[in-house]
Amino acid sequence: MKKPDEQRVIDILRRRFGIKDCADDVESCRLDGSTIILKIDTMVQSTDMHVSMNLKDAARKSVVSCVSDFAAKGVKPRFGLVSLTLPKGITETEINGLASGLSQASKEFGIRMLGGDTNQGTEITISVVLFGTARRVVGRGGAKTGDLVFVTGPFGYTASGMRILGGAKARGAFERSAMRSIMRPSVKLLFGLRAARVFSASIDSSDGLGTCLYQIAGQSRKKIVVDKIPAGPGVTEFARRVGVCLEDLVFYGGEEFEIVFTAPKSSADALARCAKTCRTQLTQIGHIESGSGVFLNTDTISGRLENRGWRHLR
Amino acid sequence: MKKPDEQRVIDILRRRFGIKDCADDVESCRLDGSTIILKIDTMVQSTDMHVSMNLKDAARKSVVSCVSDFAAKGVKPRFGLVSLTLPKGITETEINGLASGLSQASKEFGIRMLGGDTNQGTEITISVVLFGTARRVVGRGGAKTGDLVFVTGPFGYTASGMRILGGAKARGAFERSAMRSIMRPSVKLLFGLRAARVFSASIDSSDGLGTCLYQIAGQSRKKIVVDKIPAGPGVTEFARRVGVCLEDLVFYGGEEFEIVFTAPKSSADALARCAKTCRTQLTQIGHIESGSGVFLNTDTISGRLENRGWRHLR
Repeated sequence: MKKPDEQRVIDILRRRFGIKDCADDVESCRLDGSTIILKIDTMVQSTDMHVSMNLKDAARKSVVSCVSDFAAKGVKPRFGLVSLTLPKGITETEINGLASGLSQASKEFGIRMLGGDTNQGTEITISVVLFGTARRVVGRGGAKTGDLVFVTGPFGYTASGMRILGGAKARGAFERSAMRSIMRPSVKLLFGLRAARVFSASIDSSDGLGTCLYQIAGQSRKKIVVDKIPAGPGVTEFARRVGVCLEDLVFYGGEEFEIVFTAPKSSADALARCAKTCRTQLTQIGHIESGSGVFLNTDTISGRLENRGWRHLR
Repeated sequence: MKKPDEQRVIDILRRRFGIKDCADDVESCRLDGSTIILKIDTMVQSTDMHVSMNLKDAARKSVVSCVSDFAAKGVKPRFGLVSLTLPKGITETEINGLASGLSQASKEFGIRMLGGDTNQGTEITISVVLFGTARRVVGRGGAKTGDLVFVTGPFGYTASGMRILGGAKARGAFERSAMRSIMRPSVKLLFGLRAARVFSASIDSSDGLGTCLYQIAGQSRKKIVVDKIPAGPGVTEFARRVGVCLEDLVFYGGEEFEIVFTAPKSSADALARCAKTCRTQLTQIGHIESGSGVFLNTDTISGRLENRGWRHLR
């Protein structure tokens, strides 16, 4: 019997629903003269919550993950719904942890939670729906030849953190950064809201930087050349220490809630100023050329980047 | 350690989110001058899908359950999102079943599915979000003294059906109706859309008719007197045959997607005509008095109705 992976499931559903638009981080529709932007994102205990993660952090992260898609599109999420599935026997302390993480996140991002529903199941599942309105949503397919490619924040911490949780040793400060990237990740919402008007294409990085670059290259029908690997401080050393390839940590980790975007060269100074005001780290990692695919071209490595990332059900 | 039930979980979340409005079937908010009406509803395999239920019917029912809340409020659900959590190893045939049920339901109710997300977990979970706009939403608290209490369709089939699935014997035609109420329930969306303008209070019956009457009585600060028990044909005979109380089947079954509403006497004729046009069975089951609580007063039974219904985590 055929066992479809996540992409196949998505393809089947999109065909059945008659969805023809390119995949994007958020859904949108016209309703009474407004463009409503929505996103649903589900966090599942057995897949997305490491056993060492407390429920408050898990609940906050379920909102973070959804906010990150809005940040990449430059849209403010204004309202939310939450559907909780809980196992029988869950304690009041655990519920309070979940509720506290959800309410903390809604305050952190200025979202009003309207309600939701509660269900019983074999494991904890948190579905978060966020929505707002927008005049324009930056897609993934607008990169032009000559545009620059940027990322907010460093990459490689979450993949390092998962290895540390699996027993790998690391220096104290690096271990703390890596753990924070898994347990209490930040989102560059303010930067996304202020800067998105100059983005030509953008995507939230949570499926992994490599996949995201391929999404932009593919939908824009362009080639991306990466000349700077945005490894966070300590990631290179950690990679050497545990004997893994730096590119594995940076391009294929996933669960990093950064914005990956392209913008014309002429906006580079304005973007740098905006990043500074928002205290967001901004790194230009490459540029757009005519052609297709994603290529590395740094002092130490060159060649085509593999197109792989996290995929459920595989 | 305290083990909270569903109501306690909802109370904790509502307090944390600062939600002060009375509970209703749908959530609403003002956005760019429109009133957006939304609902999220999650169906969980181990709780909501009987082992004999096929995935196409289960997926359709996950939409039905959400549409039913819109029907009760007289609001057209126009768009939807779906979040699917699937166990590893699910087959392509099973995915096609789910996709087919979701797309069939979206066609049946005229909903455009915009997208959603796909996740991996230990069991199948389907979260459906529907939304639309409305000028007015009928609440649960508007019943006035002298108003009549109505229900669409018969009650008692789902509770009978669950007993039949558990091994109880029934006549062929009754068994088919009871099974259909579980596997392929109908929703009175058209009637709700056309008739809701005269409702003074309304609620979707899926938590059980008894609980729903208590919700209307409580939020309206009125007393409901039920003088007709809306048992479907054959339910009384089935109750006798299997030795259960008729009221148990009718008032405490739940998972019936009917509209329970109140309306002024003056609208009774118009409601009857509307029900006829929509081919919806309409039964006046009682009336509103000043006071509190829900009371039965029929030829065979009188007294206060117990306030109990389905509650998760109990």
